[in-house]
Amino acid sequence: MAGSTFGTIFKVTTWGESHGKALGAVIDGCPAGLPLCEEDIQKYLDRRKPGTSSITTPRKEEDIVEILSGIFEGKTTGTPISLMVRNTSQISKDYSEIASYYRPGHADYTYDQKYGFRDYRGGGRSSGRETLSRVAAGAVACKILEQMGISVCAYTRSIGAIQADLSHFDRTAILETATAMPDRKADDAAISYLEGAKKQSNSVGGCMECRIEGLPAGIGDPVFEKLDANLAKAVMSIGAVKAVEIGDGCKVSSRFGTDNNDAFHLEGGKVVKTTNHAGGVLGGISDGSTLLIRAHVKPTPSIYTTQETVNKSGEEININIKGRHDPIVIPRAVVVMECMAALTVLDAMLINLSAKLENVVEFYRK
Amino acid sequence: MAGSTFGTIFKVTTWGESHGKALGAVIDGCPAGLPLCEEDIQKYLDRRKPGTSSITTPRKEEDIVEILSGIFEGKTTGTPISLMVRNTSQISKDYSEIASYYRPGHADYTYDQKYGFRDYRGGGRSSGRETLSRVAAGAVACKILEQMGISVCAYTRSIGAIQADLSHFDRTAILETATAMPDRKADDAAISYLEGAKKQSNSVGGCMECRIEGLPAGIGDPVFEKLDANLAKAVMSIGAVKAVEIGDGCKVSSRFGTDNNDAFHLEGGKVVKTTNHAGGVLGGISDGSTLLIRAHVKPTPSIYTTQETVNKSGEEININIKGRHDPIVIPRAVVVMECMAALTVLDAMLINLSAKLENVVEFYRK
Amino acid sequence: MAGSTFGTIFKVTTWGESHGKALGAVIDGCPAGLPLCEEDIQKYLDRRKPGTSSITTPRKEEDIVEILSGIFEGKTTGTPISLMVRNTSQISKDYSEIASYYRPGHADYTYDQKYGFRDYRGGGRSSGRETLSRVAAGAVACKILEQMGISVCAYTRSIGAIQADLSHFDRTAILETATAMPDRKADDAAISYLEGAKKQSNSVGGCMECRIEGLPAGIGDPVFEKLDANLAKAVMSIGAVKAVEIGDGCKVSSRFGTDNNDAFHLEGGKVVKTTNHAGGVLGGISDGSTLLIRAHVKPTPSIYTTQETVNKSGEEININIKGRHDPIVIPRAVVVMECMAALTVLDAMLINLSAKLENVVEFYRK
Amino acid sequence: MAGSTFGTIFKVTTWGESHGKALGAVIDGCPAGLPLCEEDIQKYLDRRKPGTSSITTPRKEEDIVEILSGIFEGKTTGTPISLMVRNTSQISKDYSEIASYYRPGHADYTYDQKYGFRDYRGGGRSSGRETLSRVAAGAVACKILEQMGISVCAYTRSIGAIQADLSHFDRTAILETATAMPDRKADDAAISYLEGAKKQSNSVGGCMECRIEGLPAGIGDPVFEKLDANLAKAVMSIGAVKAVEIGDGCKVSSRFGTDNNDAFHLEGGKVVKTTNHAGGVLGGISDGSTLLIRAHVKPTPSIYTTQETVNKSGEEININIKGRHDPIVIPRAVVVMECMAALTVLDAMLINLSAKLENVVEFYRK
Repeated sequence: MAGSTFGTIFKVTTWGESHGKALGAVIDGCPAGLPLCEEDIQKYLDRRKPGTSSITTPRKEEDIVEILSGIFEGKTTGTPISLMVRNTSQISKDYSEIASYYRPGHADYTYDQKYGFRDYRGGGRSSGRETLSRVAAGAVACKILEQMGISVCAYTRSIGAIQADLSHFDRTAILETATAMPDRKADDAAISYLEGAKKQSNSVGGCMECRIEGLPAGIGDPVFEKLDANLAKAVMSIGAVKAVEIGDGCKVSSRFGTDNNDAFHLEGGKVVKTTNHAGGVLGGISDGSTLLIRAHVKPTPSIYTTQETVNKSGEEININIKGRHDPIVIPRAVVVMECMAALTVLDAMLINLSAKLENVVEFYRK
Repeated sequence: MAGSTFGTIFKVTTWGESHGKALGAVIDGCPAGLPLCEEDIQKYLDRRKPGTSSITTPRKEEDIVEILSGIFEGKTTGTPISLMVRNTSQISKDYSEIASYYRPGHADYTYDQKYGFRDYRGGGRSSGRETLSRVAAGAVACKILEQMGISVCAYTRSIGAIQADLSHFDRTAILETATAMPDRKADDAAISYLEGAKKQSNSVGGCMECRIEGLPAGIGDPVFEKLDANLAKAVMSIGAVKAVEIGDGCKVSSRFGTDNNDAFHLEGGKVVKTTNHAGGVLGGISDGSTLLIRAHVKPTPSIYTTQETVNKSGEEININIKGRHDPIVIPRAVVVMECMAALTVLDAMLINLSAKLENVVEFYRK
Repeated sequence: MAGSTFGTIFKVTTWGESHGKALGAVIDGCPAGLPLCEEDIQKYLDRRKPGTSSITTPRKEEDIVEILSGIFEGKTTGTPISLMVRNTSQISKDYSEIASYYRPGHADYTYDQKYGFRDYRGGGRSSGRETLSRVAAGAVACKILEQMGISVCAYTRSIGAIQADLSHFDRTAILETATAMPDRKADDAAISYLEGAKKQSNSVGGCMECRIEGLPAGIGDPVFEKLDANLAKAVMSIGAVKAVEIGDGCKVSSRFGTDNNDAFHLEGGKVVKTTNHAGGVLGGISDGSTLLIRAHVKPTPSIYTTQETVNKSGEEININIKGRHDPIVIPRAVVVMECMAALTVLDAMLINLSAKLENVVEFYRK
Repeated sequence: MAGSTFGTIFKVTTWGESHGKALGAVIDGCPAGLPLCEEDIQKYLDRRKPGTSSITTPRKEEDIVEILSGIFEGKTTGTPISLMVRNTSQISKDYSEIASYYRPGHADYTYDQKYGFRDYRGGGRSSGRETLSRVAAGAVACKILEQMGISVCAYTRSIGAIQADLSHFDRTAILETATAMPDRKADDAAISYLEGAKKQSNSVGGCMECRIEGLPAGIGDPVFEKLDANLAKAVMSIGAVKAVEIGDGCKVSSRFGTDNNDAFHLEGGKVVKTTNHAGGVLGGISDGSTLLIRAHVKPTPSIYTTQETVNKSGEEININIKGRHDPIVIPRAVVVMECMAALTVLDAMLINLSAKLENVVEFYRK
């Protein structure tokens, strides 16, 4: 039932529906003393804002965040930080028809089965708009990680058949292209590809990836709370994600051990891995190299061609979905992935403070 | 720190190291009234027992489970069920050498970084032997699911380059072949393949899959506690798993929406999906069709060729690992995947009991 | 750190400070289908509203609740219910002086020690105003319990030396008197008593009690999650509560077993207890009789006589607190106790749905 | 359902019944590097061992603890510590009769109502013997607290009408007297008092108290996770405890503010309280003075006089309980209280490591 809380120490609770009054997040357990203002969060929200290019929904939402608690004289106080974004662009009439039937690829049927009825306006709680709250909270996690020299960077790896060329990784392109690809050439190709799909009233899937750099070794916990297990959950919980890979991911299943093990060597006296097939995690605990996570995202289920389905009266019908939908989820989901990864890693780092007794004793002896 | 507990209502806590005195699990929150005896659990443990074929470690462990609490007159009482398996075949001298260096692909380095030192005997807590506790607990979950008409079935899909042919799915072969493949021909081919690798002192990766059938629609929770997110965590937490897919998984990223949406239709008055690209889950909640999860498993990192690494004195060295290791993880990991899936699904079902107020009110009105 | 979440299934997260923009609560895990509107909550908030009598703070707050999410067509949807109350009457200048020193009996010193600094305006998060969020959430729990025939009723038992006579329990008086006593005569006496204390710039302690009626036997869990243990935590977490008793409470420590055991007998075929020394709970599980909890509340620490303390510059000083404070906490805390008890009991009832396997199996066979 | 886990970071799960094969505890989240052996735990278990004086049950249990995991080369590894004590003195025939009826003051009726049946041998999971696991785990917490200069000391304050004189607190007497009183004279008087009660086949209640010294200011969390709230839960969860007081406890309800506030002053440059009515906690957070908790314990419900009750066939009957029972719970419960307090405080201290951002950043910059 209670599925809207994430994290153990840095604990985020989100709320809100696509067409309700507002959406928001409460962060409980944020360490005290972080300088924080609305602008810190707004710049992350702006990255997932709709209506910014030809390949996102024309729905215009300003998505202005308001901090309601937890800050005093510009700094976090250690008590809950409440963040809220008012909905301003709900056009509920668009959705009145879908109340009566189940859209393929959507959660209409499953919510009805679980709860007996559903808020059908724009998908209600199951709308991608829910991720707005994750981004608001994740922006705070990112700011803390930055202070510790850790960078979290997600980007689009492929859109349909179009792959970004990562050998010339262009970090600035991620924020500047409509596709969030780190490759401007691929961005051009992907936009043509998407426009082709749009003309055919179709939608497209894609793949996004996240790199976490600067993370010290030793983060994550054994057995069930492995860092990669929690990242998999965090990323798979983003609607439309159907597969998660760590490091070389799926490729390992057809490999020999000699090709997959990462040798250790020394670099300036530091232990480092010669390769990084593992993607920065060994036995569920970070190994000091780049953490690499990949997510495969399904095509937007809202397509404008005729589809077969069933209505609530128990009849088979044909439907044509209307409304305002992105032909592809990924460009706006990239920042969501970044934020979920940041929340996961930060929480693991806070839990890790008590790993060694000598550190605990020293902390309280000060 | 505390990474050894899984689940919210049906809560499992595991403990034990590869070469300690014993391993075990405590199940807290098992509903009262389930007939349960050691044999129910033993038959699951026997499926992951080493030494049963030429392709598993020659280490012989009887792995006999003892139920220490929670059962009275043959039935669960609702209080904690404590399960223990004594270690009997520890040959600690095999491992004394590895105390001084970091094996590639293992958690030696990361545990040392996290905790300052490690139990190096057979990998200690990071050993695959830890999964014994998961299987002991999962066997109980499986028995409960069975009573509700839900079957959980995992199997090997591929080993290195050898794929099982799933079009003639042979369920009995899963339990009868050394590879746990549902295809006896592929099993033969895979064994040859493995023996080839073994001769070259190498190890092999593979892919395993799990099908959950009979699960009603409506299981799982919105946002962070999606059923597929929790399954991804559960499966990714099994050591050596590097990727998790739900339904069509990675394939969706290169697809168009028209090819990926599953239409709804009626079958005997029931709403069903025409196809199952989604793998049985929509918006994180089960949709009544088969739940399908796939895991990609890396080759066993313990290989018998010379490898480069670093020792604790800070020197680059070459090592040759000894000991008794499986050339492939999967055949014994299949039952672990089955058990983790069962634990996840059962817990979600117990949480789901309070989804609708009318059910809660009716329960207490009785 | 993260101290603002309560409950396992019916999970409440609160946020907000005395002089921030707003306060609120998010309820995650509320069963779907409960008719709910702002008025249901407002009537509970009105019971803790300040400024309603001569014995509460003259601070006027309208405390109007707004439901921001989780309701559709007048009913709960099963997704998070976000509740918010805007602050409208902050007079921050009243508090500017207290930034520099530690008020006796307040959390000024401990918050500074924990977090390095504090939001000193009106006590910030440690203000009694925080309980507004608990009442907003508790009102929803109360409404659900009502639907199951369970009533939760808290009242004032004593104020300083003045005891209510419970032998003629006057339930209507609880809502109608300024003291929330179930005895109008004692209410008169208590008001005189309080006015005497006020004249001497003093404050007064008191005792409040809560009765839960209609609760079925079998609620609560063994060992650490006993119903009385969770009630003790819930009630002790209300600022100013210094002792919690269940049933006959402290009296049991000077008693013989023959005087303390409650015999069982039959009443209309039902097992009932002849007496209720135990207060409705045996072995941490409800026994079907009235649940009785008592809380002892300290006098308001904000008093208007000169007090000795220390300032942040490390000097011993004399202070005279200003501001607008209740001479007694209890009349407004009674509804907080009621709400905390309701939240505790409801959560235990939702957890209890999976106690017996036969119920679980039957639920899913339907 | 799942009531047997305690703590967030230092997480303890207990299991076992009075007459099962064994009882035990799993500690997950114990910081790595603590020297720990069985003797460290045994000395705590010996303090609650039955059969050591005329005023405890004649049941003889050696209660020898075995450490099954989590220790390597004499130190904790950071992974789960599994502790087990085999039952050796179960005389189950003593209890066969009670299967058919509900003993007054016991959990027989409530367990039957909750689970449909119960393990009636010696009370099963609801037996006081369950606390053995708490003591085993608590001993580890105590050892860690000691390393940080924190002492936790519980003792008997009163037995029936006999009060210990705390003005000449005799710490050695706690461990050396049969009553665990810090006053040898009161111990003599209490033993006479208990023998008188025993002659009349009666039992006696009492009061126990716990002092935590050396705890730094700043421990505990706001709102629901207040240190005193968690201590109240921890102590109330011990069977037979019916009231918990912090500091002056119940007395505050009849006091004026001028008599209850603790002034601050300076002592050697340190902020200290002139008095300690608050019992060491302000706003739920420790204030650096002695933490004081008091618990009122009911008389043992197993008495040897004739009692009225109801049997499972629905008849009113008279019963005479047999078996081996303590005439008073407290002397053996004192160490349980000490352990529960230690577990609570240690967990709060580990959570507190992330309170200030500057500490977190500094930790990872090292």
